[in-house]
Amino acid sequence: MNPTNTIITIFGSTGDLTIRKLLPAIEKLLQEKLLDDRTKVIAVGRRDYTTESYLSFVEKELKVPFNTKALIPHVTYFKLDVDNQKDYLSLKQYIASISNSDTRKIFYLAVGPELLKGIATNIGESKLVEKEDLNATITFEKPFGSDLASAKAINALLWQYFDEKQIYRIDHYLGKEMIQNILTVRFANKIFESVWNNNTIKHVKIYAKETDTILSRAGYYDTSGALKDMVQSHLLQMLSLVAMEVPRSYNSEDLKNEKVEVLRKLRYDRKSLVIGQYDGYQNEPNIAKDSKTETFVFFKAFVDTPRFKGVPFYLLTGKALEQKESVIIIEFEETSEQHKWDLPLFTNKLYIKIAPQDGISLTLNSKVPGLRNAVEEVDLDYCVACNAVGNLPEAYEKLILDMTKHSKSLFTRWDEIELSWQFIDQVKQDIVNKQIPLRIYKNHQELYDLIYEMTGESI
Amino acid sequence: MNPTNTIITIFGSTGDLTIRKLLPAIEKLLQEKLLDDRTKVIAVGRRDYTTESYLSFVEKELKVPFNTKALIPHVTYFKLDVDNQKDYLSLKQYIASISNSDTRKIFYLAVGPELLKGIATNIGESKLVEKEDLNATITFEKPFGSDLASAKAINALLWQYFDEKQIYRIDHYLGKEMIQNILTVRFANKIFESVWNNNTIKHVKIYAKETDTILSRAGYYDTSGALKDMVQSHLLQMLSLVAMEVPRSYNSEDLKNEKVEVLRKLRYDRKSLVIGQYDGYQNEPNIAKDSKTETFVFFKAFVDTPRFKGVPFYLLTGKALEQKESVIIIEFEETSEQHKWDLPLFTNKLYIKIAPQDGISLTLNSKVPGLRNAVEEVDLDYCVACNAVGNLPEAYEKLILDMTKHSKSLFTRWDEIELSWQFIDQVKQDIVNKQIPLRIYKNHQELYDLIYEMTGESI
Ligand SMILES: NC(=O)c1ccc[n+]([C@@H]2O[C@H](COP(=O)([O-])OP(=O)(O)OC[C@H]3O[C@@H](n4cnc5c(N)ncnc54)[C@H](OP(=O)(O)O)[C@@H]3O)[C@@H](O)[C@H]2O)c1
Ligand SMILES: NC(=O)c1ccc[n+]([C@@H]2O[C@H](COP(=O)([O-])OP(=O)(O)OC[C@H]3O[C@@H](n4cnc5c(N)ncnc54)[C@H](OP(=O)(O)O)[C@@H]3O)[C@@H](O)[C@H]2O)c1
Repeated sequence: MNPTNTIITIFGSTGDLTIRKLLPAIEKLLQEKLLDDRTKVIAVGRRDYTTESYLSFVEKELKVPFNTKALIPHVTYFKLDVDNQKDYLSLKQYIASISNSDTRKIFYLAVGPELLKGIATNIGESKLVEKEDLNATITFEKPFGSDLASAKAINALLWQYFDEKQIYRIDHYLGKEMIQNILTVRFANKIFESVWNNNTIKHVKIYAKETDTILSRAGYYDTSGALKDMVQSHLLQMLSLVAMEVPRSYNSEDLKNEKVEVLRKLRYDRKSLVIGQYDGYQNEPNIAKDSKTETFVFFKAFVDTPRFKGVPFYLLTGKALEQKESVIIIEFEETSEQHKWDLPLFTNKLYIKIAPQDGISLTLNSKVPGLRNAVEEVDLDYCVACNAVGNLPEAYEKLILDMTKHSKSLFTRWDEIELSWQFIDQVKQDIVNKQIPLRIYKNHQELYDLIYEMTGESI
Repeated sequence: MNPTNTIITIFGSTGDLTIRKLLPAIEKLLQEKLLDDRTKVIAVGRRDYTTESYLSFVEKELKVPFNTKALIPHVTYFKLDVDNQKDYLSLKQYIASISNSDTRKIFYLAVGPELLKGIATNIGESKLVEKEDLNATITFEKPFGSDLASAKAINALLWQYFDEKQIYRIDHYLGKEMIQNILTVRFANKIFESVWNNNTIKHVKIYAKETDTILSRAGYYDTSGALKDMVQSHLLQMLSLVAMEVPRSYNSEDLKNEKVEVLRKLRYDRKSLVIGQYDGYQNEPNIAKDSKTETFVFFKAFVDTPRFKGVPFYLLTGKALEQKESVIIIEFEETSEQHKWDLPLFTNKLYIKIAPQDGISLTLNSKVPGLRNAVEEVDLDYCVACNAVGNLPEAYEKLILDMTKHSKSLFTRWDEIELSWQFIDQVKQDIVNKQIPLRIYKNHQELYDLIYEMTGESI
């Protein structure tokens, strides 16, 4: 497919996301000719910039070297008051002046959730995006709501103005190499396809560990916490991809249908729930001294499908932990033969490594070299990053490229969001109703010891 | 188990096998205290040596540095005429003088097949080994016979003098690290245990390629050829281990019972048979100018068990080929999903690497890193040698150690030999009756092209 003539209008163009992720991604796509040379980026903001002063601001903000020069022919800064509908009409006129009927128009809301409804309404009201025009689409960042009720309200508003086909909800984890690779690993490898079920899989672990504290995200984070910030989106998305059935086809809708089925069958074991807050959180700037926001969460969940019934999924995410690591670990059962031997019972484990380094690794049992009759675990490793030619693309490159192509597989559909919030709301309610204690942790080990006590699983 | 006091009597002590393999193995086992300090080695030969001059001969013959000093306290040279029974009685007296009733007595025939019957008879007649004394055993090198009839004749003779429990038939491939590892890989890894059958395995390839020509082995080789030298022993042993059922237990007899079952169900596809002789073979010293001995053989075989019915086993071995490589390749089917995609149909392949480097590798399908939707084969590798502490033990170390322990798993039982010869005799007969052409090959590619034409399989 040839690149199409595209106009990408970014709201929140002076923000962190735009500067650190979106503009560099667009620059790279242009450079690789994956975006057409005619591509225009309209950087919308409330500040008084010219295009030139905007670009030098961007350059200053960026810590990494980044050649904004290449963007000069493509970027136009457009000043707009998000609450003023007239400004949207001017924007519309401007866009009309530089586009034709084939032009792909992407409106990207790179702004906080508090602006989402206002901007979406104005885009709708000013008919910047019209329901019938599938060439015009609108992109939302996570978080999409803060619970089921608020997400429903937002969505009702969106559906008033836009067709579901026009709505792109981002979960940038879906743009990551190894997340995209999950379906290839599962469905293009006979040895895994054959064992991907509860006869063979002992349990699945999905971790997203961070060493960072909340840094400068206090305002947002304190109203959210680990469950809403990480589990509702990234962790449940990973879980869906691991647990889903073979889809009818690989088009976006068929894929979503199966992912949604998993969320429908998801339940968790309340007794396994551990929530924590790192010691010192309450002293972070802009955090209430009595904040009860969790920065750590762990629980055991089950997917009650014929394929996965009975297989525990251990989900864990948190801040201020011992390492930065996002990984999915599929652990297989021991063999019946192993139980006949007087040897250690190591298991096969498939690691799908998402961060910090993309890769696959597989733990096998092998004879200990030498004259003794012994068995050891050996690691067979494949480092994607090490083998890739050039740098791996950033998630946002893939996501922006897919938007231009109307390819929605890596975006979340409304029912996925809905079911995820329903699940999170349930957990949140249990925390209150069942008075699940918030553990203040000085280090990860306290939490992992507790989890071991409660579930017998070592993290 | 503590090392036992052992006397190893080696017939053919001036031969290549003794010098290059057996003595270094014994030396290493002593050094590692796996053989008792009291261990004695009686080096039997027809030449006029003293123990001292024998050891200096050994040292001279050996190209690799090897500390025979450590052997001095253990080795005694014993001159013996293999046809003279009186000499056996002296040997018996000598052994009696240095042993007690607990002493483990191993008689190792490191001589060519032409001496086998004579020496065995004399050992039996002189009661060096008595049927009732399970502490005294006798070890035979391959080849064990040159066809079914001759093997049967030898065996009948042996059973006259010895209990099957006392007979150790060596196939040194069974002592190799990765051959020993086959059962661990199969039975201690859930992901392999579950897919080890004809639902999932597309075919199995068993290769033993050599770059060497026959070197100085003309005499023996010309009467044998690739089928008898390699297939009857090493290749069929590998095949049995790959194809066997889960054994009732891991004791030697139960293992053999299952290996034998495989040989019983083995049949080959005559139309796939390719035999070759490297160009120049007939000009090698001591080879008849019109020799029809094959130095290369390939065929497709089947194991008609419920587990493996329909799965082709491609066996290949030969001299003067492009590389030295002994490997078992288990290739799995494509997934049904792969067939729905417009992408290359790579398969999973498990490599059990026996030589030149021991290891395991697994080929998986993975997403090509980057923005395209593509799939590539990636190799996950485990190099046993690279990870072993110190050197890997040589096959003969393991085999000698196991003899001292009465552990027979890595030795071949009579019925294995019998069925292997039956199979080889059939192939040999077909070559004559069906006039299978002997292909003279200048290089491997001619043969591989032919095999590709005949079977569609690339080597
Ligand atoms: N940053 C990331 O890496 C990242 C990753 C994943 C998801 N996200 C999501 O992306 C969204 C944006 O994040 P961000 O980190 O870029 O936030 P940010 O750095 O705070 O940027 C917010 C943007 O919104 C604009 N804005 C704020 N209040 C406004 C108002 N009242 N009127 C007009 N413009 C206003 C800001 O303009 P001024 O500069 O003029 O204030 C700025 O351009 C959030 O939903 C976030 O959760 C971000
Ligand atoms: N070499 C290997 O790596 C290897 C590997 C696998 C299997 N094998 C098998 O092991 C056996 C021995 O092989 P090898 O390579 O060691 O053979 P070799 O080098 O020819 O040695 C033969 C031995 O037998 C002795 N011998 C030969 N004729 C004799 C006679 N008439 N009376 C008394 N002793 C006699 C020789 O003594 P003299 O020195 O006095 O002639 C020598 O000690 C063969 O069955 C072979 O197939 C060998």
